[in-house]
Amino acid sequence: MRPKPNATPDDLAFGINACAMALEAGVVRQLLYLGETRNDRVHALAQTATDAGIRVEQVDLRRLDELTGGGVHQGVLVRLRELESADLRAVAAAPGPSLAVLLDGITDPQNVGAILRTAVAAGVAAIVLPRRRGAQLTPGVHRASAGLSFLAPVASPQNLAQAVEILKENGFWVVAADTGDDAQPATQFDWPQKTALVIGSEADGVSHLLRRESDFVVSIPMDARVESLNAGVACGVLCYLYRRQWALY
Amino acid sequence: MRPKPNATPDDLAFGINACAMALEAGVVRQLLYLGETRNDRVHALAQTATDAGIRVEQVDLRRLDELTGGGVHQGVLVRLRELESADLRAVAAAPGPSLAVLLDGITDPQNVGAILRTAVAAGVAAIVLPRRRGAQLTPGVHRASAGLSFLAPVASPQNLAQAVEILKENGFWVVAADTGDDAQPATQFDWPQKTALVIGSEADGVSHLLRRESDFVVSIPMDARVESLNAGVACGVLCYLYRRQWALY
Repeated sequence: MRPKPNATPDDLAFGINACAMALEAGVVRQLLYLGETRNDRVHALAQTATDAGIRVEQVDLRRLDELTGGGVHQGVLVRLRELESADLRAVAAAPGPSLAVLLDGITDPQNVGAILRTAVAAGVAAIVLPRRRGAQLTPGVHRASAGLSFLAPVASPQNLAQAVEILKENGFWVVAADTGDDAQPATQFDWPQKTALVIGSEADGVSHLLRRESDFVVSIPMDARVESLNAGVACGVLCYLYRRQWALY
Repeated sequence: MRPKPNATPDDLAFGINACAMALEAGVVRQLLYLGETRNDRVHALAQTATDAGIRVEQVDLRRLDELTGGGVHQGVLVRLRELESADLRAVAAAPGPSLAVLLDGITDPQNVGAILRTAVAAGVAAIVLPRRRGAQLTPGVHRASAGLSFLAPVASPQNLAQAVEILKENGFWVVAADTGDDAQPATQFDWPQKTALVIGSEADGVSHLLRRESDFVVSIPMDARVESLNAGVACGVLCYLYRRQWALY
């Protein structure tokens, strides 16, 4: 078995899209690329970095494979500055409709990446990834998000309970995406103007703690033969059902 | 580089979920498993197959790796009967609200699998995968769909134009998911009771031919910095926006 891409250090991103987004977001401190590549986009990225005064280095394939743990790097890799967290208090205090998404125990990089991509697309105000029991922004996440992890307003409180407290103080209602007798169909739900949407993992759902803190529980109506939707798909469905009711931009 | 899972013969499925679903759907003609595995679910699948009178064989790891092209088989593999296509004419003629999803040039197994899983969950009446320029139901698709490909009502006409003709004859309106000046926001769209939803690939969108055949064009409103949503996510969002308006079960 080859090591997973997320076994690499956390201050890396690789692949053309992820590196392009990292450059656009201004979070790159060094760019390494395969000098012999024929891919014009890689050369263009190296040029962009050089023009921006970023340190650029040509490396060979062996070095890139090594640094990315055998990940699909497409000939380019960047080292990142420390990524800035979104200020959840400031976001929560902003007036008007607002949707925050809280990830409760979702750690699979593919899922976290898909959720970040979807959340940015849907205009979500904050995505909350707790430091405890949470996902980190690893190279696998950057890649799965097509680099939108660099543009996503990610808040990283100690834990989700803290985030929920801040959001509630600012008039948010907590909506857990889960099943159960108290769950309303998400397709018919009247979404609060300020919604803190809690999404649990495909395996375990929303934790007891967050379930207790929830004002509402919604479930996506599904054919009984399907156990669950992919977490990224579920997030997309819920965010856009909210958006249908409350335009965000 | 290891070969992709979909480089294996098309009458295979592997991985626990995919094999369990294939058994449930009654499409298995042989089951092979790793005799020495400690995974109880694999032994349970072998027992289920035996009880159903299906030929079961113990094999070693090398053989499983070989048969799956190094895919993540989790110790179990099934050989499939020929999968039956859904009868699009019969489906289209059924009364009441109905949603058909047409995949236009989507060939990535991950995306096709995610779309099939979501479509079954959302109660879609038919998923149309054309034989030309289309995706096949490969092992990679079965796996990415968590085996819901075996339960999905997949229709396989020669081409999409043929499918569109059948659907239109039966009162369906063709809705293309695409961008452009004529596109309406999908979140505000008034969905026809009988909708044939055309989804294009992330790279190329909907083909000219299908665009011309469309009665409406809808686009998912997105932050301008996001090029596109993952095809599975886009499909989920659109199917559930339809479902909000027209309950399917």
